[in-house]
Amino acid sequence: MLSKAKLKLIRSLELKKNRQSEGLFVAEGPKVVGDLLPYYRPRFIVATRTWLEIGAFPAQTEIIEVTDEELSKTSFLKTPQEVLAVFNMPDVRSSALSFPLSGLTLVLDDVQDPGNLGTIIRTADWFGIRQIICSQGTADAFSPKVVQATMGSIARVKVCYTDLPSYFANLPKGTPVYGTFLEGANIYQHPLSQNGLIVMGNEGNGISPAVSRFVTEKLFIPPYPADAITGESLNVAIATAITCAEFRRRTFQ
Amino acid sequence: MLSKAKLKLIRSLELKKNRQSEGLFVAEGPKVVGDLLPYYRPRFIVATRTWLEIGAFPAQTEIIEVTDEELSKTSFLKTPQEVLAVFNMPDVRSSALSFPLSGLTLVLDDVQDPGNLGTIIRTADWFGIRQIICSQGTADAFSPKVVQATMGSIARVKVCYTDLPSYFANLPKGTPVYGTFLEGANIYQHPLSQNGLIVMGNEGNGISPAVSRFVTEKLFIPPYPADAITGESLNVAIATAITCAEFRRRTFQ
Repeated sequence: MLSKAKLKLIRSLELKKNRQSEGLFVAEGPKVVGDLLPYYRPRFIVATRTWLEIGAFPAQTEIIEVTDEELSKTSFLKTPQEVLAVFNMPDVRSSALSFPLSGLTLVLDDVQDPGNLGTIIRTADWFGIRQIICSQGTADAFSPKVVQATMGSIARVKVCYTDLPSYFANLPKGTPVYGTFLEGANIYQHPLSQNGLIVMGNEGNGISPAVSRFVTEKLFIPPYPADAITGESLNVAIATAITCAEFRRRTFQ
Repeated sequence: MLSKAKLKLIRSLELKKNRQSEGLFVAEGPKVVGDLLPYYRPRFIVATRTWLEIGAFPAQTEIIEVTDEELSKTSFLKTPQEVLAVFNMPDVRSSALSFPLSGLTLVLDDVQDPGNLGTIIRTADWFGIRQIICSQGTADAFSPKVVQATMGSIARVKVCYTDLPSYFANLPKGTPVYGTFLEGANIYQHPLSQNGLIVMGNEGNGISPAVSRFVTEKLFIPPYPADAITGESLNVAIATAITCAEFRRRTFQ
């Protein structure tokens, strides 16, 4: 049975300020909780008998068995899924400068929709991109919506938050910084390195001027037909995926 | 001023059965409403003075001027945007067989999330794919959430709903039917035609057995590194985008 205090704590973790003051975040469902358990330490786990009979968790974890009704009271999901875990949050303010510059790193400049951010983290995981550097205005990667949209990838992809212009100003010279712009070069006809930074911008405004001045390679995903005059655009998670896929496609040639 | 009857009508259009019985759907915001007005006939438009001063609409359209407060009472958006229009809905049960088979057509087999469907329609528009054939179990393209997620692309992309196995059974022989499967061929190393059908499956279960037997070309979007043993997957809207992008990329070679 779940105490009122724990129920209140869980519900409070919907808000960023509470996640930060408590140092905790929530994940739900057998797939996501299962993916996170090897990477993050659980503070406690709320689960139905169904999950407890097959779920694996570290010894000495506090387990609270609940009914489906109790779970639905605490869950952030429309359809609660057997288990909800409260995890210790990693330090996302750790310096982005500690991220190695080998391989590809994603940089997000004020991506605001939690669903987009979660999908971007999941996509980065698929394409072997293990580091994402976010502007302070980017959605919080540990909100319940984002964690669920990552489908567990938040376990394998490191996310940090920093002031992007200062970060770029301190980058070693010659580091390729890619970004997509309407006036960019056709991505399919441009050289792409397997080392560097890929910057993606805000849903409405794209990459901010303060960041775009650090982009060394401006790219463009052409519509079809290529000369289509269009007022349209691609969703930022879609543009991120097509860009990352194209970087990795080059390794098959 | 908005009458209670109209307010009630608008709110009722959140549900598919009401959209079908009324033959109406809702779109919001200057961008989306502006994109739809040349394609769909508005039944009436609810707008603030800001929009009325610059928005264009057909003569004889019933216009209801409201305050921001009134608009927020009727809007489906967290942040209402100046205008909400109620449009006559096209007939989505029109036979899929009337869609021409030249060019590329998307086929969705039970895509259930409205956000995914809206993003897929928006992406199809970018890549010049103007036809989407949906299974009966796919989310309704005219729900408020989907319409908003298309960002206006629902104006240019035709969507219809049909029984997919019967549709495929009646396809002309030799029509290429592409689909993504875990056991498919590396999409980057497989011949792709600019004519044919691209099938995408349900979020949890992929393409159903009843449909997959009609797929003639099984494709796979490789992760990175290509031999990564991963229990992960890509979101269906992301997989759709990478697949469509790859079809169109071939036209640049």
